[in-house]
Amino acid sequence: MGDSQLTRVKLTSVLLVLQALFIVLFGIFVDYGDDANAVMSTGNETTPNSVKSYYPMFQDVHVMIFVGFGFLMTFLKRYGFGSMGFNFLLSALVVQWQILMAGFLHMEHGKIKIDVTSMIAADFGAGAVLISFGAVLGKTSPLQLVIMAFFEIIFYCVNEMIGLTYFKAVDIGGSMFIHAFGAYFGLAVARVLWREDIEESDKEGSVYHSDLFSMIGTIFLWMYWPSFNGALAPGDDQHRAVINTYLSLAACCVVTFAISSALDAKGRINMVHVQNATLAGGVAIGTSADLMIRPWGAMLVGTSAALISTLGFTYLTPLLSTKAKVHDTCGVNNLHGMPGILAAIAGAILAAIASTDIYGLSLYQVFPARSPVENSTMLQELQARFSEIEAGLGRTAGEQAGYQMATLGVTLGIALLGGTITGFLLLIPCLDRPEGDQLFDDEKFWEVPEEGFQKLPLFDPNSSHGVNREEPAIKNGATEDTKF
Amino acid sequence: MGDSQLTRVKLTSVLLVLQALFIVLFGIFVDYGDDANAVMSTGNETTPNSVKSYYPMFQDVHVMIFVGFGFLMTFLKRYGFGSMGFNFLLSALVVQWQILMAGFLHMEHGKIKIDVTSMIAADFGAGAVLISFGAVLGKTSPLQLVIMAFFEIIFYCVNEMIGLTYFKAVDIGGSMFIHAFGAYFGLAVARVLWREDIEESDKEGSVYHSDLFSMIGTIFLWMYWPSFNGALAPGDDQHRAVINTYLSLAACCVVTFAISSALDAKGRINMVHVQNATLAGGVAIGTSADLMIRPWGAMLVGTSAALISTLGFTYLTPLLSTKAKVHDTCGVNNLHGMPGILAAIAGAILAAIASTDIYGLSLYQVFPARSPVENSTMLQELQARFSEIEAGLGRTAGEQAGYQMATLGVTLGIALLGGTITGFLLLIPCLDRPEGDQLFDDEKFWEVPEEGFQKLPLFDPNSSHGVNREEPAIKNGATEDTKF
Amino acid sequence: MGDSQLTRVKLTSVLLVLQALFIVLFGIFVDYGDDANAVMSTGNETTPNSVKSYYPMFQDVHVMIFVGFGFLMTFLKRYGFGSMGFNFLLSALVVQWQILMAGFLHMEHGKIKIDVTSMIAADFGAGAVLISFGAVLGKTSPLQLVIMAFFEIIFYCVNEMIGLTYFKAVDIGGSMFIHAFGAYFGLAVARVLWREDIEESDKEGSVYHSDLFSMIGTIFLWMYWPSFNGALAPGDDQHRAVINTYLSLAACCVVTFAISSALDAKGRINMVHVQNATLAGGVAIGTSADLMIRPWGAMLVGTSAALISTLGFTYLTPLLSTKAKVHDTCGVNNLHGMPGILAAIAGAILAAIASTDIYGLSLYQVFPARSPVENSTMLQELQARFSEIEAGLGRTAGEQAGYQMATLGVTLGIALLGGTITGFLLLIPCLDRPEGDQLFDDEKFWEVPEEGFQKLPLFDPNSSHGVNREEPAIKNGATEDTKF
Repeated sequence: MGDSQLTRVKLTSVLLVLQALFIVLFGIFVDYGDDANAVMSTGNETTPNSVKSYYPMFQDVHVMIFVGFGFLMTFLKRYGFGSMGFNFLLSALVVQWQILMAGFLHMEHGKIKIDVTSMIAADFGAGAVLISFGAVLGKTSPLQLVIMAFFEIIFYCVNEMIGLTYFKAVDIGGSMFIHAFGAYFGLAVARVLWREDIEESDKEGSVYHSDLFSMIGTIFLWMYWPSFNGALAPGDDQHRAVINTYLSLAACCVVTFAISSALDAKGRINMVHVQNATLAGGVAIGTSADLMIRPWGAMLVGTSAALISTLGFTYLTPLLSTKAKVHDTCGVNNLHGMPGILAAIAGAILAAIASTDIYGLSLYQVFPARSPVENSTMLQELQARFSEIEAGLGRTAGEQAGYQMATLGVTLGIALLGGTITGFLLLIPCLDRPEGDQLFDDEKFWEVPEEGFQKLPLFDPNSSHGVNREEPAIKNGATEDTKF
Repeated sequence: MGDSQLTRVKLTSVLLVLQALFIVLFGIFVDYGDDANAVMSTGNETTPNSVKSYYPMFQDVHVMIFVGFGFLMTFLKRYGFGSMGFNFLLSALVVQWQILMAGFLHMEHGKIKIDVTSMIAADFGAGAVLISFGAVLGKTSPLQLVIMAFFEIIFYCVNEMIGLTYFKAVDIGGSMFIHAFGAYFGLAVARVLWREDIEESDKEGSVYHSDLFSMIGTIFLWMYWPSFNGALAPGDDQHRAVINTYLSLAACCVVTFAISSALDAKGRINMVHVQNATLAGGVAIGTSADLMIRPWGAMLVGTSAALISTLGFTYLTPLLSTKAKVHDTCGVNNLHGMPGILAAIAGAILAAIASTDIYGLSLYQVFPARSPVENSTMLQELQARFSEIEAGLGRTAGEQAGYQMATLGVTLGIALLGGTITGFLLLIPCLDRPEGDQLFDDEKFWEVPEEGFQKLPLFDPNSSHGVNREEPAIKNGATEDTKF
Repeated sequence: MGDSQLTRVKLTSVLLVLQALFIVLFGIFVDYGDDANAVMSTGNETTPNSVKSYYPMFQDVHVMIFVGFGFLMTFLKRYGFGSMGFNFLLSALVVQWQILMAGFLHMEHGKIKIDVTSMIAADFGAGAVLISFGAVLGKTSPLQLVIMAFFEIIFYCVNEMIGLTYFKAVDIGGSMFIHAFGAYFGLAVARVLWREDIEESDKEGSVYHSDLFSMIGTIFLWMYWPSFNGALAPGDDQHRAVINTYLSLAACCVVTFAISSALDAKGRINMVHVQNATLAGGVAIGTSADLMIRPWGAMLVGTSAALISTLGFTYLTPLLSTKAKVHDTCGVNNLHGMPGILAAIAGAILAAIASTDIYGLSLYQVFPARSPVENSTMLQELQARFSEIEAGLGRTAGEQAGYQMATLGVTLGIALLGGTITGFLLLIPCLDRPEGDQLFDDEKFWEVPEEGFQKLPLFDPNSSHGVNREEPAIKNGATEDTKF
């Protein structure tokens, strides 16, 4: 069919043009950082190359992006190929684009130097895009996703620069810059793309084994989240980040099971909660992971995140869908959105109470803007005792807290605005948008083996209920047994 | 139904009460260790923070607990949600409780200081509980599991303290403290909980793809076991631990396939063996992983473990079930129990022959109790040459070997006694115990999607055998083709 | 049946004899390296044990071998047990044998000393064998595979020694020694084993969920490939290797999707491409991963690899099968063979242009044969400035490039010759060779649970196409919609 042949041409050419563009731009601008450049190596190094220090946590983050997000989204019974496959494609594309975009904003002598920390940052960018993908999962074509990713990374990098370089906010786990940003960008796109046929589709559910595939994703995200929050933190900050994240997630998991059971008339646990809400603690602790929140504080954050997230999946997501035309396939608002806001608030509170009593002189390294200004007497005294301290802006604790919240506000604004603009771009015709029966279905974009591909309705001769249609698949936590 | 509504309340409240209790106790007692405390950071550190040293192996252990055990137990065709989900819940709960319990037994000035090694130790504790879970898999409610875990960790921590602090035994891989303990605790619980309907259930088997999900668990356990055995070992001990474990597991795998084929009339390999017995080498080498067992010695241990384990799955487990009313769902006796005992014996033998000829002066660091006593001339001479040596008890090799075996004995005793007591606690009514048709089935505790959930009997129009009931699912290695 | 009882005896005895032989040979020849030997430990070490440096990347390689290859091959709908299981068995066997074989070729005072780098090298050897396994997947018995592995490792170790020690070629990622070697060895075996019933089998395809299991393998291979290419590289070389591999794979993934869509009449993406061709960039960059290929150069290599690989799966593999009687089950020629040759060529080009302008003095460490000869003035001057430089052969850039290509030639020669010889060995009768209906089927070698095991033909009452036979399973990328 004519339309399909154009499909062939469109996706192929967009991808090839982008890849060629990336190669050319890398050729002009990008080179190895000093630690990866042979000509900088003197052979007399006494300390190990920095790759040893960053690489293990890089790989954990890498697994979260490709395995974690990829498999998490395979819960959809007829969209497993799209979930895994588009996750794979988008991430491979985005990491290259993020290196360029972030590089352009931080060039040194017209060059972008990359090393293993660039790879970590690139993967973080992919994370934001995949979160947005989760909001629109099953409702777009790969071409639309590629276009969304391209523009999202521009907004992502600009927002991060504003927050880190100008507002000098801290957000070691990216709960604002990655999670809240990605969620609300994606939800804005979802709102613009909303159509009635999305609500009417009955393919938006899981089957037993797709729920198990999804758990592969959940569990790798949950386990490696301490690395996500600690990957770019130095020294004791990193040590604290992994402890805080570990504890926040443990508490979050326990409370998720507790609330999930309470929300069911028969006390049964809901897989949607276990797959998603158990992770909210990782997001919610992100901004303050490297701060002195204390172990009990991290657990309290995880507990709150579980509450917000689980209730969100059961009550808020259906409401957003029916009342606000925001159809959130994966419930990213419950896992990345609201917990991201919670993280920002927790971070602001901790910033407000931060002092040298709690942090010692590393206060000025954890909150660089708190450091005394250039050339001040106070700065010189500090540097005599703690040589790594750099000049700052002399902010007070309250001012830093204010900037934390301002950063959240700007992030939400850019995300919603950027997402809305991008959403309208995706409405341009001939972007192969799936409709009706094509929603939540791999058939349009993938060569799918017939066997094993769930057909609806599936006649089950042993079911006392006859055709399975009488048993609605679980959607976003709400079933007929959910106690409202 | 009234009972289900109480179910809702019970599990929810127990979990919320426990989590609140943990937060309060952490608030009172737990703080960051010095390496994770900002106020201890001077900014002039020349060596990297200890998190860099321990964290990679911590994550390997973490994956074994959450992915390894979790997926290993998904072989049950109708209990995949319970296996993965309860594994997840129990572990998240236990790591918090273990930090407290172990912390109470080792407090410094009324405080429990935690760092990444605490996280490793906490995960180890979860390991013990998950092994016990394996013995009772499919036969308990989540509420019963939570209660079992709570009490088990108390016995676990007390036993470990006796063995390490008083008996000064060595067990770097926890083959006694984690594996043997967890197995026999769990088997004792299983014995107390035994009922006839367990033996009569026909849901206790696998299907083709659940066996593949289970292999995810097997393979992550097998690969990361060197980290489990080496995570807390220093220097060359750690290097030796990973080599010994790697070789023991390689030999174990090869021999498992060999024996498995031999036990089938048609020479076919049995997935139960491949999923479980291939891992026995990791358990069996655990106590001596950091000792000078020599590469060939490690392979011999792995070979023996494979033999014991594979034969155990085929012959011993059915016997224990029918004759002793010990129904061991996962065959933990074959993977953790007997190989744990083998490990203890191997460790004792190696302790008996340990000398400075073999270890050099690091003998006194590998076996601290062998070190000369405080203030002795011999100690001072040693410390002049090897400053890290600390005072010990001046034990002989034979004495150390004796204490190794005594530790095994005490461990078995506490495990069996503790398991029995806990088993009786679990018999308290209104703990939502599954019965009859509810055994080995997710339906009672989970909202299960209808599609894909294996129904029995499953009519297969193409099967020349008609109804599948004529093809018994494989249970614990014994099929009609097994040659007895 | 008589034949099956012999089967039992044969596989069991071969495995037990091999394992016993390994234990004896390890007992005579193998001991811990100095870093793992307690008697070498002085207690006054100021630098961390080398295990810390190598172990994290070792585990990534380990996961690639056991999870990556293992699950990648589970796409076959009725051979999941064989793929995962035989991958497991072969690897466990091969790592032990490779340690011995490689050790014999490099003995020090009649001893083979092993440490964590030996484990990495052993896993690399397993990689070569598993690639060959991929060429013959579904067409051999486990006994044939064990024999193939045994002989392959001999050829593998000899070839690697010729290339590294005599030709002094560089191949940090093993694209010649592991990938090209393994592929062409395996293809030679496949050619010798070719029979008509292989082409006639209709079991050689995937089903929906087996494709998802396969993606587990794909994604772990893709993510950890930087570790595979960097594991044994020092300092900045390693840093460069992970950057180059990361970028090559990213570009390869994007271009694979692009070409895959273009090759389908309806623009749909083919899972075979996503599972396999996306990885070709890792192979293709292997030889030059630690060289100064520049980030854009790595991406160009990845792009070329995707092109070659994707087109290979769609056009070349069916042709090789029908015209040349080379039936390549997994398409190893497209993923390991041709990309391996591409890697060698890229490596030769980079060797030809290598100079101190690009590498500084580390030129002589990256290309040791370029170093000036023993006792030359030039060598002494260099060593004064860069103490780690060792004497070399004084080769020019062009000479080094020549030796790179010569190494490729010798590798291909030994692989094809060795594979052909080994193939004929596998034709010896009574090696339990599967035939006809037994091909691509677990039933002959595994106790398979009936439920869930795909039966053909599978009657699908809802399919408007009636019996599924009218929908050919996807084989190696070619479907009726492929545009030729």
